[in-house]
Amino acid sequence: MNLRPRNLLLSLAVWIAGAVFAMSAFAQSDPLPSWNDGATKQAIVDFVAAVTKEGGPDYVAPARRIATFDNDGTLWVEHPMYTQLAFALDRIRALAPDHPEWKDTEPFKSVIAGDTKGVVASGKKGLEDILAVTHAGMSTADFEAIVTDWFAEAEHPRFKKPYTDLAYKPMLELLAYLRANGFKTFIVSGGGIEFMRPMTDRVYGIPSEQVIGSSIVTKFEMQDGKPVLMRLPKINFIDDKDGKPVGISQYIGKRPIAAFGNSGGDREMLEWTGAGDGKRLMMLVFHDDAEREYAYGPANGLPDTHFGAFPQSLMEEAGERGWTVISMKNDWEEIFSFGE
Amino acid sequence: MNLRPRNLLLSLAVWIAGAVFAMSAFAQSDPLPSWNDGATKQAIVDFVAAVTKEGGPDYVAPARRIATFDNDGTLWVEHPMYTQLAFALDRIRALAPDHPEWKDTEPFKSVIAGDTKGVVASGKKGLEDILAVTHAGMSTADFEAIVTDWFAEAEHPRFKKPYTDLAYKPMLELLAYLRANGFKTFIVSGGGIEFMRPMTDRVYGIPSEQVIGSSIVTKFEMQDGKPVLMRLPKINFIDDKDGKPVGISQYIGKRPIAAFGNSGGDREMLEWTGAGDGKRLMMLVFHDDAEREYAYGPANGLPDTHFGAFPQSLMEEAGERGWTVISMKNDWEEIFSFGE
Repeated sequence: MNLRPRNLLLSLAVWIAGAVFAMSAFAQSDPLPSWNDGATKQAIVDFVAAVTKEGGPDYVAPARRIATFDNDGTLWVEHPMYTQLAFALDRIRALAPDHPEWKDTEPFKSVIAGDTKGVVASGKKGLEDILAVTHAGMSTADFEAIVTDWFAEAEHPRFKKPYTDLAYKPMLELLAYLRANGFKTFIVSGGGIEFMRPMTDRVYGIPSEQVIGSSIVTKFEMQDGKPVLMRLPKINFIDDKDGKPVGISQYIGKRPIAAFGNSGGDREMLEWTGAGDGKRLMMLVFHDDAEREYAYGPANGLPDTHFGAFPQSLMEEAGERGWTVISMKNDWEEIFSFGE
Repeated sequence: MNLRPRNLLLSLAVWIAGAVFAMSAFAQSDPLPSWNDGATKQAIVDFVAAVTKEGGPDYVAPARRIATFDNDGTLWVEHPMYTQLAFALDRIRALAPDHPEWKDTEPFKSVIAGDTKGVVASGKKGLEDILAVTHAGMSTADFEAIVTDWFAEAEHPRFKKPYTDLAYKPMLELLAYLRANGFKTFIVSGGGIEFMRPMTDRVYGIPSEQVIGSSIVTKFEMQDGKPVLMRLPKINFIDDKDGKPVGISQYIGKRPIAAFGNSGGDREMLEWTGAGDGKRLMMLVFHDDAEREYAYGPANGLPDTHFGAFPQSLMEEAGERGWTVISMKNDWEEIFSFGE
């Protein structure tokens, strides 16, 4: 070999250039840049590698790569209250001028006064009354327009951003990463199916036909020779807890191989997903970051909540069944796309 | 020019070769070879050309290219009885040895005796009893296995072929043609959703998550620590007549731009599809070919039927609203893939 200084220098330059190129290629190819390195991120990457490796022992054909995601608290913020409840309360305040009688009737009186405790005190009956006037009595097309308008104008009280900006950046990356690997991604939420659909495609890249949620009864009617679907004040389906596997079976007809949730309402969906043969991935987002988002349990001694409670028993079941708990604080480098 | 005989001959040979090549390319590129040339086939081709022409006045983005298909009588044979009813009757005969009491109880007595009139005479209550013992009381997984086994063994009484061979070849071509043009194809059937799903992907290329149908209630249960979905003898949803637009709204969340049916049960689906803005395609298969398949109405004076009746009022509405009626006899060059 002819190791002259000039050649050495050249070799070194080539080596450095190569290393820089390799590092930048690696950085560019990291599909989950908002996830901190560690066991949680690795669990995702390992799972995807295993089920997509043709000829491997864990290979799953693309048609069976079904991943289901809860929405509130899993894909976007659910505090200080579910977004759909914020919509309903705003809607009542908007309709109040046409309903002078609401000033003296609960739960409307409390809603108009901004008295959240009074609303909560009105209980199940109060919530049904709110649902009836805000979600029923119009056509599906009119409801879609109302929801779309609200999303365009409403702002989250703490973050001062449209609610649709409050999708978690790491979860958006996860959705895109799964889809790039042949997965079909579905939302399976306790939220209203027709409340979510006007925004899921734009925010999550999930088309309306892959959104499963709670619903009220709709009725086909002819109005002036034109068919409409009218929304009735009657519950059709509650897509929560043991309703989630039922909804998945009804809408998808296949068992997911990956499921993502964040609360007691997602327990049965993860159980159902995990009970299938072959490799599975079950994950729960745990809200332990009061500084950048919110912190609530009651698991691990965090405050209890009406919205998205994560009971200690769920934490224990996660440990027993090998579900991964995502620590928002430790596993997520960034939470929102707009920066914190 | 130097037109020597040899050159002329060469030019002619090149021209002929070109023409032959062009003709064969055209023949190969006909996406609907089992459809006879004429107004019906042209209506399909013109519609697809219009909605896929970027920049054209009728252009529809791929995400909105939703096409819905009834199943029985539209995609496959529904005579002498619905395939699902044939399954239920076979199932009762298979279960009969374990139920000696059925020999003296209607509707089972008539089913076992092969007395179709007796079955029909047992009415709605009889049908509910048949449904309860053949479609409920087992897990969704067990039901899927029962249906899959039945499809592998059962034979159509006239065509002596598995029921899954009785899909209409022109409709299979139409499904493939639409999908090749960016459409998402859905089944919207009065038939049972879990009865269809075991075969729709293989037969129609339609995955389970794009199958909408009637359903019974399922219930999430833990059995020995393992979650199952049990099928209960209780109707959940009837996806027929005015239920079809409701099912479409519930499952898809978008209005189709094309819809295909064959009976009074599809009327509302076609009305709902046609009521949207922009170019639409609504078609009804009319069974007027007793020789190659079946002929029934009662429209146009053909015999009335319990299965897939096409009333005269539907024929009139088709004319008024500009829906295309497909004559099986005249529009279809071939009906089945196995040849007639």
